[in-house]
Amino acid sequence: MNLSVVRFILFQVMRIEGILMLLPCAVSLIYGDSEGLWYFIVAAFLITAGFIGCRFRPKNQNINVKEGYASTGLSWIVMSLFGCLPLYLSHEIPSFTDAVFETVSGFTTTGASILSEVESLSHTALFWRSFTHWIGGMGVLVFLLALIPMSGGSNINLMKAESPGPSVGKLVPKIRSTAMILYIIYLAMTVIETIFLLFGGLSVFDSLCLAFGTAGTGGFAVRNDSFMSYSLYIRWVVGVFMLLFGINFNAYYYIIMKQFKKAVSLEEVKTFLAIVAVSIAVIFAKILPLYENAITALTDAFFQAASVVSTTGYGSADFDAWPTTAKFVMCFLMFMGACAGSTGGGVKVSRLMILWKSFVREVQSYVHPKIVKGVKMDGKIIDNDVLRSTHVFLAAYAVVFILSMFIVSFDNLDMTTTFTSVLATFNNIGPGLSRVGATCNYGFLSALSKWTLIFDMLAGRLELFPMLLLFSPSLYKR
Amino acid sequence: MNLSVVRFILFQVMRIEGILMLLPCAVSLIYGDSEGLWYFIVAAFLITAGFIGCRFRPKNQNINVKEGYASTGLSWIVMSLFGCLPLYLSHEIPSFTDAVFETVSGFTTTGASILSEVESLSHTALFWRSFTHWIGGMGVLVFLLALIPMSGGSNINLMKAESPGPSVGKLVPKIRSTAMILYIIYLAMTVIETIFLLFGGLSVFDSLCLAFGTAGTGGFAVRNDSFMSYSLYIRWVVGVFMLLFGINFNAYYYIIMKQFKKAVSLEEVKTFLAIVAVSIAVIFAKILPLYENAITALTDAFFQAASVVSTTGYGSADFDAWPTTAKFVMCFLMFMGACAGSTGGGVKVSRLMILWKSFVREVQSYVHPKIVKGVKMDGKIIDNDVLRSTHVFLAAYAVVFILSMFIVSFDNLDMTTTFTSVLATFNNIGPGLSRVGATCNYGFLSALSKWTLIFDMLAGRLELFPMLLLFSPSLYKR
Repeated sequence: MNLSVVRFILFQVMRIEGILMLLPCAVSLIYGDSEGLWYFIVAAFLITAGFIGCRFRPKNQNINVKEGYASTGLSWIVMSLFGCLPLYLSHEIPSFTDAVFETVSGFTTTGASILSEVESLSHTALFWRSFTHWIGGMGVLVFLLALIPMSGGSNINLMKAESPGPSVGKLVPKIRSTAMILYIIYLAMTVIETIFLLFGGLSVFDSLCLAFGTAGTGGFAVRNDSFMSYSLYIRWVVGVFMLLFGINFNAYYYIIMKQFKKAVSLEEVKTFLAIVAVSIAVIFAKILPLYENAITALTDAFFQAASVVSTTGYGSADFDAWPTTAKFVMCFLMFMGACAGSTGGGVKVSRLMILWKSFVREVQSYVHPKIVKGVKMDGKIIDNDVLRSTHVFLAAYAVVFILSMFIVSFDNLDMTTTFTSVLATFNNIGPGLSRVGATCNYGFLSALSKWTLIFDMLAGRLELFPMLLLFSPSLYKR
Repeated sequence: MNLSVVRFILFQVMRIEGILMLLPCAVSLIYGDSEGLWYFIVAAFLITAGFIGCRFRPKNQNINVKEGYASTGLSWIVMSLFGCLPLYLSHEIPSFTDAVFETVSGFTTTGASILSEVESLSHTALFWRSFTHWIGGMGVLVFLLALIPMSGGSNINLMKAESPGPSVGKLVPKIRSTAMILYIIYLAMTVIETIFLLFGGLSVFDSLCLAFGTAGTGGFAVRNDSFMSYSLYIRWVVGVFMLLFGINFNAYYYIIMKQFKKAVSLEEVKTFLAIVAVSIAVIFAKILPLYENAITALTDAFFQAASVVSTTGYGSADFDAWPTTAKFVMCFLMFMGACAGSTGGGVKVSRLMILWKSFVREVQSYVHPKIVKGVKMDGKIIDNDVLRSTHVFLAAYAVVFILSMFIVSFDNLDMTTTFTSVLATFNNIGPGLSRVGATCNYGFLSALSKWTLIFDMLAGRLELFPMLLLFSPSLYKR
């Protein structure tokens, strides 16, 4: 493996993280939070180390699949370990395991918290938690690719390793331009949401934090009751934006390029919206008897469905108390997740579509053995390699899921808690059901379970292989 | 589609079912059960209709994949509908839905019962319930192939459609001989188990019924408390035989042929036994504190693990009360199921092995992109078609699972009941957890849920495609 290029990327990531940490430093100055000191110290260290490390440019900047996965996996680990330091050192989260859990939950846009209440945190800590969602949403390596010109045409492998979806394509021929376009769309949508929230009467601080959480489809809130005390207007704004951030960003690119036909004909987006609409209808019908008011019921059905399908995890209602059918639909949406090429997590709509289409083709092949039809998506036949790796992804997903549940089961919690704690972290959602439900938190789990879920959050965000590869002995062979 | 050959097979199946139903008729004569009359009437009808229908041999006896799947799916439906009639007409099970549920549960070797207690049933009904397990275990079409010479060399498609596993092979060049060998092994092992049970002091009736249930990996018991009141000796005998019937029958064929090396080198069998051994160890360690006596704890761990992994479902302990880790291991074993080519259900060990190996190959291909290695099993490279259809099988499995859970969720039961009722029927096990646990039954479910689970039992036993194909519109197109 080309170790020097991996090291180089890690130093780049440290430098970027240091620079981004200056933002919470600024927040600490505004609010006079003494905890801000630790953000300054860590940022200074990261920037210094990063700049020194980046001075040694590797001669061979070639990034193959192996280097792409390994440096992505390691970058996220490094980023999380340094990112948790201010929270830990300032004693706002006194346990190291908990600080790592909270930070990984932030970067991976999970939004699962170990904190039983958040309102006693400093503004700086609240801001940093929400800001990690924003950084992790589109990805730090994509950010790096947008900023830093790298020689060697193979850095598509970095982007592939970090971006979600069965097949990651370029919007424009140049990787750097693709990364820039994605970040510009991301930034613009965040700004628009913030403005909408300001109109709803929220403070600048709250508006920014909630917009970061929505954009990254994260889910850390700034109030103890998550969204239960916000107005209907705020819920609808955030609900709509959660769905928008769960849509494949290709659609927005086509809209900007005025290729509206292409944008509305994207199969994955259409399927995603259709499934969400049906799910909202089912949930609404099932929870209506629990509500006095149909509008509130519809708002909760819409907000909660958008929240779990985009894997954000904001909570406007305690859906653990809903009827089983509604809970089951929520679990299905959690499992499915958002579109590929969005900031959302989960298995991804396009993967499920590929599976569904392979299945239909298989049944058809029994009836008409002589017709061999390829599996198509958006009119193009899907490459056999993509088909195979989609199938293998799901196998790997099941393996990680089962092993994680096995370890968490040692905490001897009920089956629903055991199952949904893994589901909610692995798919980067946040809240699960039962003891990790919307009104609960993950603080009571054993350290072993927490580290397992930390791994799951990273594996879920990076779509398994960058993390799993780090465990492959063949990586370390000369 | 070649309808005339499908019709011909259906009449053959009716004739065979009628003849097999003479056995419970004999039992009714021995015990003087008046309910036996209905068995005589139904048997007479089946034999008459079958003989008349079989007189019209189709000219074209070609059975392609399509005809193989369709006639297998329809055969099992016809067999179940006629098989339930004596139970329904004799009013031993007064509801038609319940009678179908119980009979399908029998033939598919699930062993899930709608009866809250069985000791008040007539000997004839008890015998018929257990005997359906034996008929369904190895398969009625395999039985038909063993008995009746059919022209046209393509009846391998019938065997493929009914026998479990990712790739069904012939033991010997002739299908008929293969089917005969399988049934001879099956019969011999059933006889041996019966003898062992007789030595344990059980009556001939009980020994036969339990042996039928073990051989088919079914699980209908003849006592209300299933296995809780049997001696340790009986539990160990049945436990060992449950495992033996969960092993790929190829192993026994090799043993008969004195190819011992081949028998012990079967990868699937080795993996199966290793997983079972580890699972028993984990369960034993976790449940030991609940027991006064280590021997009883070990017996229960062994018996219950063997019972769910072979998808039999006999219960010697209420494992719903076990610690979460033990319950989780049980759920995993339920999901995995037995070996391909055995009488057990579930996803099958070989399918999981194929998935695991494809996954390892995928990770390796990232590290060494130039090495393209095939996925091997027992030293042979697995055909790409088998790989693909294994992946598609799992996708279809997930789809059916999710849709079934959705429908069952309308009963508004807890999530564990909703989940395990589908798991336990779809994988042909029998008991699940919570309200469908080892000490409970399925009688309280709504008719909609019961019919869903009836479909799941058939789809699980026939490994999806024969049942799913019946829903494919293209089957009915001219």
